Amino acid sequence: MTAPPAPASTARVDGLLSRAGAGALLILGHGSEEPDLARHLGASHLGDAFVLQPHGQAPRLGYFTPMERDEATATGLAPLAPEALEVPRWAREEPGAGAFLAAVLGRALELTGVPAGPVAVAGGWPAGALVEAAGRLAARGWPLVSGTEIARLLRKRKGEAEIAEIRRVAQATMAAFRALAALLAAATVRQGELWLEGERLRVARLKREVAQRFAAHELTQPRSNILSPGEEGGVPHTSGTPERVLRAGESLIADLFPKGRLFADCTRTFCVGEPSAALAAAHAAVAAALELAHAGTRPGIRGWDLQQRVCALLGERGYATPISHPGSLSGYVHNLGHGVGFELHELPSFKQEAGEEEGRLEAGDVVTLEPGLYDPSPDGYGVRLEDLVVVGENGNENLTPLPYDLDPRAWG
Amino acid sequence: MTAPPAPASTARVDGLLSRAGAGALLILGHGSEEPDLARHLGASHLGDAFVLQPHGQAPRLGYFTPMERDEATATGLAPLAPEALEVPRWAREEPGAGAFLAAVLGRALELTGVPAGPVAVAGGWPAGALVEAAGRLAARGWPLVSGTEIARLLRKRKGEAEIAEIRRVAQATMAAFRALAALLAAATVRQGELWLEGERLRVARLKREVAQRFAAHELTQPRSNILSPGEEGGVPHTSGTPERVLRAGESLIADLFPKGRLFADCTRTFCVGEPSAALAAAHAAVAAALELAHAGTRPGIRGWDLQQRVCALLGERGYATPISHPGSLSGYVHNLGHGVGFELHELPSFKQEAGEEEGRLEAGDVVTLEPGLYDPSPDGYGVRLEDLVVVGENGNENLTPLPYDLDPRAWG
Repeated sequence: MTAPPAPASTARVDGLLSRAGAGALLILGHGSEEPDLARHLGASHLGDAFVLQPHGQAPRLGYFTPMERDEATATGLAPLAPEALEVPRWAREEPGAGAFLAAVLGRALELTGVPAGPVAVAGGWPAGALVEAAGRLAARGWPLVSGTEIARLLRKRKGEAEIAEIRRVAQATMAAFRALAALLAAATVRQGELWLEGERLRVARLKREVAQRFAAHELTQPRSNILSPGEEGGVPHTSGTPERVLRAGESLIADLFPKGRLFADCTRTFCVGEPSAALAAAHAAVAAALELAHAGTRPGIRGWDLQQRVCALLGERGYATPISHPGSLSGYVHNLGHGVGFELHELPSFKQEAGEEEGRLEAGDVVTLEPGLYDPSPDGYGVRLEDLVVVGENGNENLTPLPYDLDPRAWG
Repeated sequence: MTAPPAPASTARVDGLLSRAGAGALLILGHGSEEPDLARHLGASHLGDAFVLQPHGQAPRLGYFTPMERDEATATGLAPLAPEALEVPRWAREEPGAGAFLAAVLGRALELTGVPAGPVAVAGGWPAGALVEAAGRLAARGWPLVSGTEIARLLRKRKGEAEIAEIRRVAQATMAAFRALAALLAAATVRQGELWLEGERLRVARLKREVAQRFAAHELTQPRSNILSPGEEGGVPHTSGTPERVLRAGESLIADLFPKGRLFADCTRTFCVGEPSAALAAAHAAVAAALELAHAGTRPGIRGWDLQQRVCALLGERGYATPISHPGSLSGYVHNLGHGVGFELHELPSFKQEAGEEEGRLEAGDVVTLEPGLYDPSPDGYGVRLEDLVVVGENGNENLTPLPYDLDPRAWG
């Protein structure tokens, strides 16, 4: 894969600002917990902070306490330091959270020479303080308008350091899948139930294994995970009941999406023992759909185009799809994929209604491809296979090259 | 401890709304990730959602997809379901995030009969969509004003279920401390360095132990942790360099603050081998300060009063304090404590400038007491001891009854 172009040059930001009629982009947030801000902060640890990028200028980092001077320097951004922002003065004179925020941001806008006119705001902030600050800044000539769409577009294509971190998280995710496969391969069957280590094998045992693997890599699971057997897996977003004992012959969807600085996302489906004919057929269809999706993924294609192709393939095999049967709860019931980065779900969008920039794949995008088939009846099943892919000019990189086999013994 | 009164009765919310001149409290957020919203959601998993509590009414839960019907029901709140809110219609007619949000919230305000006039908003939402929605709702007669202060006050006193969850997290935290003490007690000293399991004992080994213990209890560390030896511990918020090898005779601050549904927070300081006279004296002074703080903690006292008492004690022993030496980087350099709950730092505040309601302890508050002493010189030290306490009418409950000993062998 060739290196993608710099994802967010000053010229690109200026273009987006001009289109929005805004004189600056202002991203607010609590350090790298805020996805829009995280891409500016690298591995540095900051609390409440903001990035202000006036039209025609490089982004600058505002922060609130001199104790964070070193962390601020580590970002490489030119600082708007608390001394320059007169933070102590505003804390004294404007004790309300909204008034304080407006005073600090107003000083930042003055210091960087942002003229009166709309300022595009993104990121997130406590809602009460933000709406109050917005009113005060509007009164001073800087009405806040939405910069959310701009910030999301700026996060779409990833830089090399971002891809490297997603790759690291994906590798740890693969290690967790191999550990799950090993546990399942070691299980024995008694009267239809799986046993391991002298007791019935429950979903909770798998969740514990996953959590400990990720902890060893300093990854968190802020959105939890899905380890969803049989009928529970028949409903796509059921996370799995911990006490549920696993059974031979049923499906088990494992969908893991841990986070380091960025997220990874991968799904496999297991079956210990003999799958039903319906489950085996669904698995084969999903594997074929995933292969088709991989083959079609390239810069310039719309995610929706890929979804249409997958729907056609699954429809030909007799399954309901969101195109043939909108609202159906059985068959293929969701979209093909989504972008992954500082948020688990971000651009590009695979939805039909996605705009031109939001919906088209570019080199440097990191996307999931995750066809699935579901039967939500009491003895139903769920099958989903999901890879995580870096879109590239000269071919893609699959970040999750794991086996697709239902049988965990085939993973050995 | 007697059961605290219901933390947020309708009458209490009405009183706070009347004082703010608002006709409703509106809390926005991404499910239980938003602290203001989390107290309404119990253990249920919801995505984007809001709670709307008009003056004189019980709170109602708004959500955006029928797929979350069961999760919404589990909260016990009366629903504002997507069908009633006409979510599909607004998604079609108002595709921009801000316009869509304004349309949904406007319908919720209509459905619940909120009259024209200010609406207090709390929680958090993507900043761009929020400021745009605020403009549109103002144009329809519902200007948004800050409800952040109201929501923070409503989170101050904890209910019984909240205290039970903090207690569970605190118990897991204590188990992690005992595991750390056991590792340190098992270490041997070679040429001043600690060795364990055939290699030098580094901060990373302790961080791994902590992470795996918390993973086993399904706790996360969204704010990481502090495992900070010697000179690193001399600066209060240094989190500890993973590669740093631990040494005999130096201090090691362990400050753990994991999260289940709510946070816990506890600190101990260790020293393997013989502490310096300065470190031993600082540890004794901090232990005495913590004892004084425990003894003074009761409903009705201001956190700032406790801070003053602790400063007096430490000042008498010859240490600089924030009162005697504002801005000093050695001695006692921070505040005594803070409330803990859905956020790691919440009300009550122990700051001098805290308002009457924000700064006074009540039964049902959960607070840290965490005096510390620091010497940031190259061969300096850090000492901090922190307990987590439920304030009660008939005595407090210490949620973190662990040894205070520097010597990990004394923990056995």
